[in-house]
Amino acid sequence: MSHASMPEEGLGFSGRRFSAEYHIQGSAAQARACADRLCIDQTVEAADHVIPSGAIRDELLGQVTAWEAAGPMLYRAKISFPIELLDGSVSTLLHMTFGMAGLHGHVRLTDLSLPDDLVAQMAGPRFGTTGLRNLLQVPARPLVCAVLKPLGFTPRQLAALAKEFAQGEVDMIKDDQSLGDQPFCRFEERVARCVEAVRDASSRTGKRCLYIPHVSSPWPTLLERASMARKAGAGGLLVCPGLIGFDALALLARLGPIPLPLLSHPDFLGSHYVSPDSGIAPPVLFGLLPRLAGADISIYPTYGLTYPISEADCRQIAASCRRPLGACPSIFPTAAGRMTSSRIDEMTTLYGQDVVYILGSDIRREPDKIAKACRQFVHILNRDGPQDLGK
Amino acid sequence: MSHASMPEEGLGFSGRRFSAEYHIQGSAAQARACADRLCIDQTVEAADHVIPSGAIRDELLGQVTAWEAAGPMLYRAKISFPIELLDGSVSTLLHMTFGMAGLHGHVRLTDLSLPDDLVAQMAGPRFGTTGLRNLLQVPARPLVCAVLKPLGFTPRQLAALAKEFAQGEVDMIKDDQSLGDQPFCRFEERVARCVEAVRDASSRTGKRCLYIPHVSSPWPTLLERASMARKAGAGGLLVCPGLIGFDALALLARLGPIPLPLLSHPDFLGSHYVSPDSGIAPPVLFGLLPRLAGADISIYPTYGLTYPISEADCRQIAASCRRPLGACPSIFPTAAGRMTSSRIDEMTTLYGQDVVYILGSDIRREPDKIAKACRQFVHILNRDGPQDLGK
Repeated sequence: MSHASMPEEGLGFSGRRFSAEYHIQGSAAQARACADRLCIDQTVEAADHVIPSGAIRDELLGQVTAWEAAGPMLYRAKISFPIELLDGSVSTLLHMTFGMAGLHGHVRLTDLSLPDDLVAQMAGPRFGTTGLRNLLQVPARPLVCAVLKPLGFTPRQLAALAKEFAQGEVDMIKDDQSLGDQPFCRFEERVARCVEAVRDASSRTGKRCLYIPHVSSPWPTLLERASMARKAGAGGLLVCPGLIGFDALALLARLGPIPLPLLSHPDFLGSHYVSPDSGIAPPVLFGLLPRLAGADISIYPTYGLTYPISEADCRQIAASCRRPLGACPSIFPTAAGRMTSSRIDEMTTLYGQDVVYILGSDIRREPDKIAKACRQFVHILNRDGPQDLGK
Repeated sequence: MSHASMPEEGLGFSGRRFSAEYHIQGSAAQARACADRLCIDQTVEAADHVIPSGAIRDELLGQVTAWEAAGPMLYRAKISFPIELLDGSVSTLLHMTFGMAGLHGHVRLTDLSLPDDLVAQMAGPRFGTTGLRNLLQVPARPLVCAVLKPLGFTPRQLAALAKEFAQGEVDMIKDDQSLGDQPFCRFEERVARCVEAVRDASSRTGKRCLYIPHVSSPWPTLLERASMARKAGAGGLLVCPGLIGFDALALLARLGPIPLPLLSHPDFLGSHYVSPDSGIAPPVLFGLLPRLAGADISIYPTYGLTYPISEADCRQIAASCRRPLGACPSIFPTAAGRMTSSRIDEMTTLYGQDVVYILGSDIRREPDKIAKACRQFVHILNRDGPQDLGK
């Protein structure tokens, strides 16, 4: 079989392209060679002699559309690909933009740029910032989500804790990512008890509160847990896309007819961001990807603790949750990790009002006053209106 | 709700534990503090005041069971966890051993140690080295797998190439990982044509040859493609666990009643290994994990090219594919990337006979002599018996 014997057939490409931006470490020559190699590796991954001339070479291969120095021994490359290589799934988007590139060090995926109609093909959030605010009837202030932990509590113990949180009038109560279907804390019993506890407390306070169980698990268990949670009256679903793929979020976002808000958790996504010169930049990993997949809330490791993430990273994640992205609604970034009322000003200055505050251990410093502590926290947010932003 | 008001309930732990080994960078004090933090973060991820005394503190938390210096500013820690926290899925194994740990830099997962009965709960390979050799009727020599590429070829063009490979008497022919269900190369047509081409050629040569399509895709499409491939007569399935999760491999491995050999491809797994002081060491990422998930063949980026992986890494991956692991069969490591007959001696010295050689672009240097080049490659392997190992 020679190439001569295989008449070139058109690939039916529209000529429209999407693009990915990379930071590449090295000398100008090294970085450029890397960018040129990515054009091939991310598409045909083949030696020159097996790439026929014509449409494959001219239209299918990646093309470097922008190139500039971005720092010492650092270059920024924008590479475009035909839109026909995407299919509306996040896995194909990741495969096309970083599947093989990620196997090399010194290359970092720093941005994605998709035409609006391609964004429309992705699952995307069903609620987004506005939808979730409407659901919760909280028009303006930051949202508050308390966490059920530790692993090792029985469903009864977790439900008792959920009751405290709901009496404290938080907006959401989520499972810790460690809660699965352990023998000492079965998923079904936990969800039933927590839904009931939150519903009871909520009916007394008059404050809407969503209980959000953790459903990450392999197929088909994921769907069974999501379905069980919805039937039991859960108010949202927590998913770890690092463990089961971003398209697991997408599938849950696409489930009809009654969708639930989705929270994306960073468990097992760490390898992608901890090394500054490889992997995926935080605004893509914790902003664009969960948003395109369908998360309404993106949780990520926060700056100021022990994680290798900066305040600037967090600001850019928030920007990626909100920037114009076709018809894709904006979503909530989430300041997780040792959040206390003393940090509200700092956080609100950074994030504005469209943010979720996660209350984990710190709100439980006085075990007998958990509801009160939550109420005080929410009260501060209610008192400080958007007019106080940045004070 | 005070802890005093919540009587400690037993968690029903057997006392048996599995363990993970980490390399931690830093001073002795920093590294030890990190190990101690992982014991908490990988289980309850909670502040001390919300961890009740009793079973949770005594039995559920991680425990540092081994600790030693492993180099300058480098320590090796072994941390054990109760076996009751696993559930037979790879995602839970990854969550328990690296879910939160991975969000910190300077920590690398370097080994996993599971009791035999826990290994038995994992999907594991259905064929393994022996099963695949029996299926192919190739008792001893390295196996040969040719690749259908480039993306952009029509199903008819790929089938013509598959025919050449099959006439060249290779053992397997796999799709390139770039082949999905693109408009110019639909999955169903590609599989049908390639199966037919390989079957025709194989019936003439008398040599068994498996055609292995790439099926990675979101649920439920993955199952539809796997099912379509099996019905069409495909001889195996190629999966990228980086894109859709290691449990996608596990589910395909568990599918009955007629399983197909599974090939694991490293697409989008790069972030986990490229930085030497974080992520997951190659022997775990490309050896233990695909093996526990059910791959019969693990493909990984090979040393000596542009990937940040060493000959020692590749040797250790191979060891992880073969080391005793409960009742889990050994699987084939795979030397991918610019494989030519001139490298057979080098590769056989490194890997021995239980290895798969991937033939990509290089075997097609003379487009009219692809079948001949494949036949010559296989002939060299047949001529060199295991007795020549290491010559």
